[in-house]
Amino acid sequence: MTKTAGILIIGNEVLSGKVVDQNSPYLVRELRALGVEVKRITTIPDDVPVIIREVRAFAGEYDLVFTTGGIGPTHDDVTIAAISAAFGRSVVRHPLLENLLRRHYGDGITPAQLRMAEVPEGGELIEVGNTAFPVVVFRNVYIFPGIPEAVRRKFERICERFRDQPFILRRVLLRCDEGQIAGDLNGVMSRFPELQLGSYPILHSADHNVELTLESKSPEYVEQALRSLLDRLPPQAIVRVE
Amino acid sequence: MTKTAGILIIGNEVLSGKVVDQNSPYLVRELRALGVEVKRITTIPDDVPVIIREVRAFAGEYDLVFTTGGIGPTHDDVTIAAISAAFGRSVVRHPLLENLLRRHYGDGITPAQLRMAEVPEGGELIEVGNTAFPVVVFRNVYIFPGIPEAVRRKFERICERFRDQPFILRRVLLRCDEGQIAGDLNGVMSRFPELQLGSYPILHSADHNVELTLESKSPEYVEQALRSLLDRLPPQAIVRVE
Repeated sequence: MTKTAGILIIGNEVLSGKVVDQNSPYLVRELRALGVEVKRITTIPDDVPVIIREVRAFAGEYDLVFTTGGIGPTHDDVTIAAISAAFGRSVVRHPLLENLLRRHYGDGITPAQLRMAEVPEGGELIEVGNTAFPVVVFRNVYIFPGIPEAVRRKFERICERFRDQPFILRRVLLRCDEGQIAGDLNGVMSRFPELQLGSYPILHSADHNVELTLESKSPEYVEQALRSLLDRLPPQAIVRVE
Repeated sequence: MTKTAGILIIGNEVLSGKVVDQNSPYLVRELRALGVEVKRITTIPDDVPVIIREVRAFAGEYDLVFTTGGIGPTHDDVTIAAISAAFGRSVVRHPLLENLLRRHYGDGITPAQLRMAEVPEGGELIEVGNTAFPVVVFRNVYIFPGIPEAVRRKFERICERFRDQPFILRRVLLRCDEGQIAGDLNGVMSRFPELQLGSYPILHSADHNVELTLESKSPEYVEQALRSLLDRLPPQAIVRVE
């Protein structure tokens, strides 16, 4: 079975249009390249009851859950409290995170700054060896901050643990109207029901105006479906196969 | 009460990392400027049972629902069928859409192309007067295609019907550590519990590294909260107020 994932973007700043979410486009692309199927991306406010409900649902439904945002010292950073509550755990200070923070802030460290050492009870740190930025994971929930640079830096360190069999992707570029080939696509889908077949109008290309994408984890299945598709399509519509 | 909205992005191409969703950043920004509070953005696959469940939940929970994607002539365009099923309605051809399509495609129109005339039974067209691109609405669900250019063109025509009292936004830019001002922010929140107060680390600015945002629909409330905040913050940390 293909590993599945859900991405939970936590942040009023995204929902109020102040910040464009860069984390879900990054994570979805990286996870796809690793062979993981992202089933859902949801953006929600920094609101404890809402986060509790979503984290519970995501953790039950997907193999992997990634949250971004709501990690920090201020009143609107409620992700750790909410994830803890979602699983009936207390919020505790992780000694290793506390050490890192005390080393960073020195003796003047404030209680607010120490909040960044908090994890759900039973939460673990991964990749702590040679980095000042370990990732916090609780069960199947990987907890990331909101800053895109930090998400990338952390994800790159741990991504290999998510690797699954890769998706095989072929593309067919066409010059035609989607409505003229819909029957051909239905024909392919009835013979290859497991195929992930996409059909997209393309507006800004000089040479084609429809792109078909064929995907599966089985190279043979994709090749058979591609041959079946090419046999059905009107030959004059085909610009190229990639 | 502030009007609320949910945005439902329907498309395997987004979840598989082939296309970066431009529609939710656009809609969220426009809706915020109109005074509408977006409470949730969810991206889901072109999968009828999943769309049914989400559309039902969104339509019950928010004043306005916007869907994008899954409108077209091919097998993966299932949004209309799913929204119809979500409300126990049949899929019917809208005569005006059928006329527009027949005029566009001429006598050679295919059954697949005619699928683009389909709406949930009871669905209405808005802004049909002087445009070839009416928007389909069923109850509180506004149904948009996936192509960003089309979303913009259609949304611009109908946006005035969503206008609500505007949000008032003030910003305070600081040079400090968020952990040093967390107590000040808590103080403001306990006096102004209805304030939308955000605190964000800023990485790439020469003059400040924290941005605070204060929002409300009441100008007086924001101004009072701003004064209360400025009284509490360490004066040397304040770079400017916008």
